[in-house]
Amino acid sequence: MIELKRIKACGSRKNRTGHSDSSAVSTLALFRVSLYLRRLAELEQEGVEKTSSRELGERFSISAASVRKDLGFFGAFGRAGIGYEVHGLRESLMGILGLERTWKVAIVGAGRLGRALAKHKGLAESKFEISALLDKFPDKTLGEGELKLEILHIDVLPEVAHERDIEIGIIAVPGPDAQDAANSIVAAGLKAILNFAPARIKVPPGVFVHNVDFTIYLENLAYFVNRVYHQGQTDIDGSGLD
Amino acid sequence: MIELKRIKACGSRKNRTGHSDSSAVSTLALFRVSLYLRRLAELEQEGVEKTSSRELGERFSISAASVRKDLGFFGAFGRAGIGYEVHGLRESLMGILGLERTWKVAIVGAGRLGRALAKHKGLAESKFEISALLDKFPDKTLGEGELKLEILHIDVLPEVAHERDIEIGIIAVPGPDAQDAANSIVAAGLKAILNFAPARIKVPPGVFVHNVDFTIYLENLAYFVNRVYHQGQTDIDGSGLD
Repeated sequence: MIELKRIKACGSRKNRTGHSDSSAVSTLALFRVSLYLRRLAELEQEGVEKTSSRELGERFSISAASVRKDLGFFGAFGRAGIGYEVHGLRESLMGILGLERTWKVAIVGAGRLGRALAKHKGLAESKFEISALLDKFPDKTLGEGELKLEILHIDVLPEVAHERDIEIGIIAVPGPDAQDAANSIVAAGLKAILNFAPARIKVPPGVFVHNVDFTIYLENLAYFVNRVYHQGQTDIDGSGLD
Repeated sequence: MIELKRIKACGSRKNRTGHSDSSAVSTLALFRVSLYLRRLAELEQEGVEKTSSRELGERFSISAASVRKDLGFFGAFGRAGIGYEVHGLRESLMGILGLERTWKVAIVGAGRLGRALAKHKGLAESKFEISALLDKFPDKTLGEGELKLEILHIDVLPEVAHERDIEIGIIAVPGPDAQDAANSIVAAGLKAILNFAPARIKVPPGVFVHNVDFTIYLENLAYFVNRVYHQGQTDIDGSGLD
């Protein structure tokens, strides 16, 4: 599910975090920050002004201590006995994740999945704008006419990426076409790839890659269903990010 | 991205893991086990017979110590200086995750995303079999005829689930329809839900839920692109599961 190409491994943060690993900030810590952001958005919408480590992590079964540690990594936001200011913390975290701006995204692959992603509300309401949808066969029709984006030929990705300031590519092609799609994305100068194809891709150093693997979620659910409903284990607590 | 309903919080593993949290085994530890399984499958295919914690974690930037800790949680599989037997470890982990059998899955929502998932090779090659595809409007056509599964009316889910031994449901409907889909899945007696809709769902205790949130991956990529390409940070190591 999770894999990022290393740009440069280096131990410069070792003293700060106390870890013996070389990671400056871990991918999973960043995932957790994204979760805190979702909770903060909800709290802000509810008119809540102050919150706590406990409240931020509770929904996701993340301990207050882990929340404090994660947020502490980026600077001391909370005050003992007072907590966090919802709006201010949200703004700070958005800035840290680089989300004070909109990121332009190209989807390569205009089949079912590519089109589903192009129309996915979760993306539409995010800081990520689907700015181009491309395919090797842009003329293929799936009998639906409501897509707002024109489907472009993959060969125009370099110009389109440049014109529209696209920095992230999503691969939504079948497995055997994934490497071609990755090559096109890299050649067009994009810096990061979210890969939905069930295949590994190779990219040069400096390009970040996440592989989305649905089956990991299913395996996780299977574990809990198996333990509880097939093996009768009653003390299962299927929760908790590390 | 990650949320599981608690079945029963209980501190019975406290002594064993040394954590003050109540979690017996964390969702993220299980995600990592799924990653080790993928690596083991590759190694086995390459004819490799022995492996090490380092080799298992390297691809995913997980430290050898973390690999040892994760595997140790389920029993002592490795031997100091000798490592792990690839085939045996894989079998053991498959058993632990409940993957010595096939799990039947129903997809609720036969739009673009539901159909894309129904045909996704990553699922087809897994231990999860898409056994039913259902919709409120099963007659709707998207101009494509190659789906092998008949699209059924959501109302028949209880019978179909019973007949086909379906235990896991995937929600692939638009956000506003997600709760209805969840209610149908729960009413049909399924035990776990993978929710692709950009909406929160409520389920009774005892039903496990994972929410898939694509934007978390994108936020993570944006962080690294921002740091390296916009802020010129050169010591970024965009890797590392905790």
